[in-house]
Amino acid sequence: MKLVLGIDGGGTSCRAALATADGSVLGRAKSGAANIRTDLTGARANIVDAAQQAFVAAGRDPALIPQTPAVLGLAGANVGTYRQQLEAILPFRISRVETDAEIALEGAVGSGDGAMAILGTGTAYMARKQGKSRAIGGWGFQVGDQGSGARIGRDLLEQTLLAHDGIRRGSPLTEAMLAIFRNNPEDVVEFTTNAKPGDFGGFAPKVFDHAKKGDTVANWILDKAVADVEAALGVLDLSGTAPLCLLGGLAPLYAPRLSARYQALMKPPLDDALGGAVQMAVRLFARAAEAAR
Amino acid sequence: MKLVLGIDGGGTSCRAALATADGSVLGRAKSGAANIRTDLTGARANIVDAAQQAFVAAGRDPALIPQTPAVLGLAGANVGTYRQQLEAILPFRISRVETDAEIALEGAVGSGDGAMAILGTGTAYMARKQGKSRAIGGWGFQVGDQGSGARIGRDLLEQTLLAHDGIRRGSPLTEAMLAIFRNNPEDVVEFTTNAKPGDFGGFAPKVFDHAKKGDTVANWILDKAVADVEAALGVLDLSGTAPLCLLGGLAPLYAPRLSARYQALMKPPLDDALGGAVQMAVRLFARAAEAAR
Repeated sequence: MKLVLGIDGGGTSCRAALATADGSVLGRAKSGAANIRTDLTGARANIVDAAQQAFVAAGRDPALIPQTPAVLGLAGANVGTYRQQLEAILPFRISRVETDAEIALEGAVGSGDGAMAILGTGTAYMARKQGKSRAIGGWGFQVGDQGSGARIGRDLLEQTLLAHDGIRRGSPLTEAMLAIFRNNPEDVVEFTTNAKPGDFGGFAPKVFDHAKKGDTVANWILDKAVADVEAALGVLDLSGTAPLCLLGGLAPLYAPRLSARYQALMKPPLDDALGGAVQMAVRLFARAAEAAR
Repeated sequence: MKLVLGIDGGGTSCRAALATADGSVLGRAKSGAANIRTDLTGARANIVDAAQQAFVAAGRDPALIPQTPAVLGLAGANVGTYRQQLEAILPFRISRVETDAEIALEGAVGSGDGAMAILGTGTAYMARKQGKSRAIGGWGFQVGDQGSGARIGRDLLEQTLLAHDGIRRGSPLTEAMLAIFRNNPEDVVEFTTNAKPGDFGGFAPKVFDHAKKGDTVANWILDKAVADVEAALGVLDLSGTAPLCLLGGLAPLYAPRLSARYQALMKPPLDDALGGAVQMAVRLFARAAEAAR
């Protein structure tokens, strides 16, 4: 029986799934980081390790790896020539390296037209139309990731300090924030000096919470964030019926705030990114082979 | 003859000036950093060193230090109890520790009513009204320093990436910026990952340049920046005739862009921060002593 591999690799771990030609998953496994930008050979080792373990978990012989085609979704695959370098050294029968976003989109909406918005600590978008994918955003919170948890948290701290200085009108939320920092703006500054995106993003749910209670500053921040998210969605030029999936930790908080136009397109994701890699492998390797037979 | 010391200490160096009771400077000197937040005893050592050297430069005996009153303007003097700790261990007859902003204001506008806006890599404001000073801003570029060179540069990179994604309309300036980064948005992201405020601020003059040529993105960024600066000035509640001094590297670029209300108040600074410390020392110690005689 024909087998295919789906692989989802990122900066913290690498997951693999072995599946039959019809997409039924036989075994799954997980290994270490697969960051092809910072450590190509280490990424290869973890990819192969996860694949071998997936064979073992499925009760199959890992010696079959050279006969098995694989789809790999990897962060950073769109940059430079990492993709080609990696494809050249992988042990699979065929290796198709895609970005992590591409397999996430395949998992979320399947192989047809559709779009996804990743709304978490960062933000990124991808849409597929007649087989062509387009990715936007995801440039990091310092000069991008508009609408992300990190940007919402950073905006809240900025508004808190402006309220402290009397430049903007404060609110219960800005007062609560300043209290967290012992009512000392210097403590806010100290926090921001070394804060990572996730540290800023930790305050985002608080903003959604207070916005629901009518807090003016919270609603000002979120109106801007929603406008930023919708500006990005606008560029994706979504067609009338193709599904739009919101992914990431802030997805359920954003969902009720988007305008009717996007509400009408929203669908829950069909599967996760690893499932997307498996389905893409089935589509590219198993079905194609069957059709050619 | 009575002498006074003025001292201007910061994170990179400490300057001292020895002056007569009427404010004529006899000698100046410079030593290492005087950061009272991170190294109080090291700051004390550099302060004393600069003072001794100023006596030598003036051809006076440093043994007179314990008989000489001093005004010190030091960054971080408004935080915690550093000021009191330092005053307790300084060797001068009287030590009056003020913030760096306070002596900069005294230098710029003298001892009466007046205000200053520091418009450089960062931004900060201070106003004095009937002897009472009020400082606002200066919270760092991550969540403050609106209108600063760092914020203008960061805004420019953000607009450049939004234009690249088709979310905002680009301009000759955003095209020129992307070209600097080899037309590769990943290179922009790489730059921002470790960029310091001064690195972002390095792009600010370019924004003022292009704005003059009618660049839409440059003017959009600067309209926002000017609005932020004027919002801060508005809170200072400047009186009808008191001088307003713009200091910092962006001061000459901002000056023609501020509204008529502030144009009418603008005056060139009388002196620098070290001069302000000297004048304050004369005002507090020499004249007061004379008046009491």
